[in-house]
Amino acid sequence: MKITGLVAATHTPFHPDGSLNLAIVETQAAHLLKTGVRHAFIGGTTGESSSLTLEERQAIAVRWMEVTRGSDLRVIVHVGTNSLHDAATLAQQAQSLGAFATSAVAPSYFKPATVSALVSSMAFIAAAAPDLPFYYYEIPTMTGLAISPSAFLTAAHDQIPNLAGLKFTSSNLMEYQLCTHAQQGIFDIPFGFDEMLLASLALGARGAVGSSFNFAAPIYLNVMDAYHRGDLESARAHQFRSVQLIQILASYGYMAAAKATMKMLGVDVGPPRLPTELLTPERVTTLQRELDQLGFFDWVKVS
Amino acid sequence: MKITGLVAATHTPFHPDGSLNLAIVETQAAHLLKTGVRHAFIGGTTGESSSLTLEERQAIAVRWMEVTRGSDLRVIVHVGTNSLHDAATLAQQAQSLGAFATSAVAPSYFKPATVSALVSSMAFIAAAAPDLPFYYYEIPTMTGLAISPSAFLTAAHDQIPNLAGLKFTSSNLMEYQLCTHAQQGIFDIPFGFDEMLLASLALGARGAVGSSFNFAAPIYLNVMDAYHRGDLESARAHQFRSVQLIQILASYGYMAAAKATMKMLGVDVGPPRLPTELLTPERVTTLQRELDQLGFFDWVKVS
Amino acid sequence: MKITGLVAATHTPFHPDGSLNLAIVETQAAHLLKTGVRHAFIGGTTGESSSLTLEERQAIAVRWMEVTRGSDLRVIVHVGTNSLHDAATLAQQAQSLGAFATSAVAPSYFKPATVSALVSSMAFIAAAAPDLPFYYYEIPTMTGLAISPSAFLTAAHDQIPNLAGLKFTSSNLMEYQLCTHAQQGIFDIPFGFDEMLLASLALGARGAVGSSFNFAAPIYLNVMDAYHRGDLESARAHQFRSVQLIQILASYGYMAAAKATMKMLGVDVGPPRLPTELLTPERVTTLQRELDQLGFFDWVKVS
Amino acid sequence: MKITGLVAATHTPFHPDGSLNLAIVETQAAHLLKTGVRHAFIGGTTGESSSLTLEERQAIAVRWMEVTRGSDLRVIVHVGTNSLHDAATLAQQAQSLGAFATSAVAPSYFKPATVSALVSSMAFIAAAAPDLPFYYYEIPTMTGLAISPSAFLTAAHDQIPNLAGLKFTSSNLMEYQLCTHAQQGIFDIPFGFDEMLLASLALGARGAVGSSFNFAAPIYLNVMDAYHRGDLESARAHQFRSVQLIQILASYGYMAAAKATMKMLGVDVGPPRLPTELLTPERVTTLQRELDQLGFFDWVKVS
Repeated sequence: MKITGLVAATHTPFHPDGSLNLAIVETQAAHLLKTGVRHAFIGGTTGESSSLTLEERQAIAVRWMEVTRGSDLRVIVHVGTNSLHDAATLAQQAQSLGAFATSAVAPSYFKPATVSALVSSMAFIAAAAPDLPFYYYEIPTMTGLAISPSAFLTAAHDQIPNLAGLKFTSSNLMEYQLCTHAQQGIFDIPFGFDEMLLASLALGARGAVGSSFNFAAPIYLNVMDAYHRGDLESARAHQFRSVQLIQILASYGYMAAAKATMKMLGVDVGPPRLPTELLTPERVTTLQRELDQLGFFDWVKVS
Repeated sequence: MKITGLVAATHTPFHPDGSLNLAIVETQAAHLLKTGVRHAFIGGTTGESSSLTLEERQAIAVRWMEVTRGSDLRVIVHVGTNSLHDAATLAQQAQSLGAFATSAVAPSYFKPATVSALVSSMAFIAAAAPDLPFYYYEIPTMTGLAISPSAFLTAAHDQIPNLAGLKFTSSNLMEYQLCTHAQQGIFDIPFGFDEMLLASLALGARGAVGSSFNFAAPIYLNVMDAYHRGDLESARAHQFRSVQLIQILASYGYMAAAKATMKMLGVDVGPPRLPTELLTPERVTTLQRELDQLGFFDWVKVS
Repeated sequence: MKITGLVAATHTPFHPDGSLNLAIVETQAAHLLKTGVRHAFIGGTTGESSSLTLEERQAIAVRWMEVTRGSDLRVIVHVGTNSLHDAATLAQQAQSLGAFATSAVAPSYFKPATVSALVSSMAFIAAAAPDLPFYYYEIPTMTGLAISPSAFLTAAHDQIPNLAGLKFTSSNLMEYQLCTHAQQGIFDIPFGFDEMLLASLALGARGAVGSSFNFAAPIYLNVMDAYHRGDLESARAHQFRSVQLIQILASYGYMAAAKATMKMLGVDVGPPRLPTELLTPERVTTLQRELDQLGFFDWVKVS
Repeated sequence: MKITGLVAATHTPFHPDGSLNLAIVETQAAHLLKTGVRHAFIGGTTGESSSLTLEERQAIAVRWMEVTRGSDLRVIVHVGTNSLHDAATLAQQAQSLGAFATSAVAPSYFKPATVSALVSSMAFIAAAAPDLPFYYYEIPTMTGLAISPSAFLTAAHDQIPNLAGLKFTSSNLMEYQLCTHAQQGIFDIPFGFDEMLLASLALGARGAVGSSFNFAAPIYLNVMDAYHRGDLESARAHQFRSVQLIQILASYGYMAAAKATMKMLGVDVGPPRLPTELLTPERVTTLQRELDQLGFFDWVKVS
């Protein structure tokens, strides 16, 4: 079974003093459901998981599972971190909490030197949550890893029984196609660059995991709808809205700007944590004006 | 007017001793026409232009213009090189020969440090062939340049009157969209990664410049046909043939393997020049067997 | 007060099953003292700290402080990690344990984007152990950080009262000189590339932090002695022994080979942890033979 | 026989309109001799050779040989470029002109993929000037090449009879030591990072090729003198002058600032060529003031 539609890589909410603000999780979940998102990917890059303690990551997982119990929102818990032991602890928790799946990025301070080291590392994690599907998380712009993800899939097939697929956050679309075709196409390869979603759909993507789905899901649902109707012209127009949006956010520093944008939409996830600096109030004001002039707030309005 | 369809980035034919073999150009042109290609991009990366002398580049341009006179094949002359003076000399020649357009890569030993330096550099070249459309050639994997191509287009618009667009050989499809939308979409942005052609079509590409179009044009025409018929499933299947083909060639060293493949198809463009090493006869035999097992020779057969 | 002589960046000892083997710490400390090392840098890159849990890092710190109580060995605790909160917890512990100093690498999954973000990040950590000297740890080959360390020192001077200096593990010796001269030379800049130690001495280095000092300290003490005697010829000869040694270790995978070498010297620090793969017994045998032929075991013999 | 002392990598002089200004070569040569330099490395990186035409490179070689005939200045002609055929033409000319040696950088648009491809490429060039010593030019920051220079020397030893050594412009001082020790130390390895000269002296360097020797040779002669007297303290102080000088020049764009500095010293080598932008007059004024405040003009004064 493969994931379809949008998977939001959720933010971790903080109080202004930098401590966890778990009360906001409910608002985040409600906002996702309202805007058409049915999967939450928690504790990932967007979730600033590398800036959290183990206990904080566990608390977030508990809270998301509570908040989504009985709802239409499925929770994928990202458990990756430099310490494979911590990752395994988080995977075990995810399974005991009844999460939908786990996912893990490769260690990146020490980088696996070979395909085999990467497979062993991911197997170590996946084995800690054997009943849950496991997604390897490819994101070379963050990890600096240069191991072919399709080579990983092929080598891991026999060694990770619960390997479900791969979150593909890379612009290497030759590799994307090699991944979707690996082992006769059994793997699920949700795509991870929001601003290129339409390109991945043309190459067969069914699901996508993204950060801007937190605040701009309607844009991407329009891309998907238009694409599936065969109206590529319209799909391109919606996709370009995403490009314009992300260009603005990136010019302010993407993470801080994205969290500020969430607050503008009534979901106050607070500031980012160091080493990411927050935006000054003046910058937030300018950002809001730019987004308004772009038409962003109309684009993402849901009735 | 924008380029549609396939533009083959042609090889430079050498004798076994490494000297130019201009007699083969006619065969190359005929092969392109027979396989459905209507544009030749000569003296580019595939043409090993950086390994040629100025006189050799001039001789190739003369020969291609002779061979294509009166035919359906349009010739775009790539003139880029580290020396802008040499590039200007080649541009001037291209115009006097009646080429269709010129194109130039950025200098890459010294890299332009700013958008403005890049614009000045390209303006210097474009001004030497003022009557021809000029295409800037973006290929960061070769040049190491980190200047946004869409920022270039915006800044160059006023300073290069004959700027027609940009050959986009990059996997950054956010930039691709920014380029196609720059200045209300007046620029022509042919796409340059063959193995990702379908992705670019979905984002609005009309033309493509590629190296594997020399020997595998039928595959790509099938991608385009299927895409334009709205049969994305079939388009993906054809695109994946390209991926499999390129994966094999790359495993042998792309340039040497591509030239060997040309010979298998009856177009003997000879070996590559140093610093590219040629394949041993044994490797050529294995390559041919792999291509045969893949089905390649059937895929590219034309009646 | 500045550190002089060798600071060994110690290994974390594991049992064959990958669990901590704290019993070995005593042997490590004794070996360092016997071979002329007076400072241990624990929980750093060589210590595979990024592969440990917080509790494991705390247990190692406790053990090293116990083992070195009353001895001539000073302990610098590396506390850096992606989570600044974990780093602060470790710094606080180091101070309460009475360590000599703390040190921290920059977060590297999210990289500080500006000098100011780096200063704020390091200030957050240093403030948790305000009574201990703090050393920022520059190691761009691991972190991918591109922030000038001398610019950091200048900017941090006013904001980190306990900033003592910087562990400089980089080959950019222009920056090294800028660091040693920053703020009229008040900072301590121990050098971190063992195979280039002599170069740093010529540029004024007094102390050095290194991984091969665990098993090859006598070589480096010879380099230092010869240098300080003014016998550069001899210093170079000893330095080249280090180069030959490291070239061999690197050809086997440095970390796994270094830990195997420790065992050959009677200090069984066990295998590395994933994502680093251990050496097969066959490879260990070949490594031992190569080291023997090189003369390594004689070079590091102490009476 | 190995090169000792300073080798200045000379600028190519241009008129304000960008054309060659050969009349200045005599002034350049005189300035070098006056400031204690005995070798000129012409047509290299500093010489902007990649921005010149073949004819211009030939004209410069002719002029330098004329100007230095009978003088104490030896001329090493850099002949490297992307086209090995052009490089061979230049090498042949250098030999016929009676130059002291030739040198060549690796092609960098197409990069040699293996040690063997690099050896074959350099052998092609060196064979065109078989009577002259040949120096391979390692400068990975410009070429992006990742081939070990010591592995090159070892492999090339049998295949390039006139291989004299290697101009080492890299901060990898482990490789530097491997090069100086390759084949029992028969190769000459002049060092190429001016701001790290003292480090290389400690590692055994006898000669150095540098760009700032054009305008700051007295600083480096002081470094060398102090080093050879065994006064490392003083050597470091002089070396730090170089660091401060280069830091200022780099902040203006090194090439343009270096050429402006030459003019300040009465050697008007003109502006750089595109893609390097020249400094505005205002920036030149500020640069001059900064250099003056630093003490630069006093440091390089010769009686």
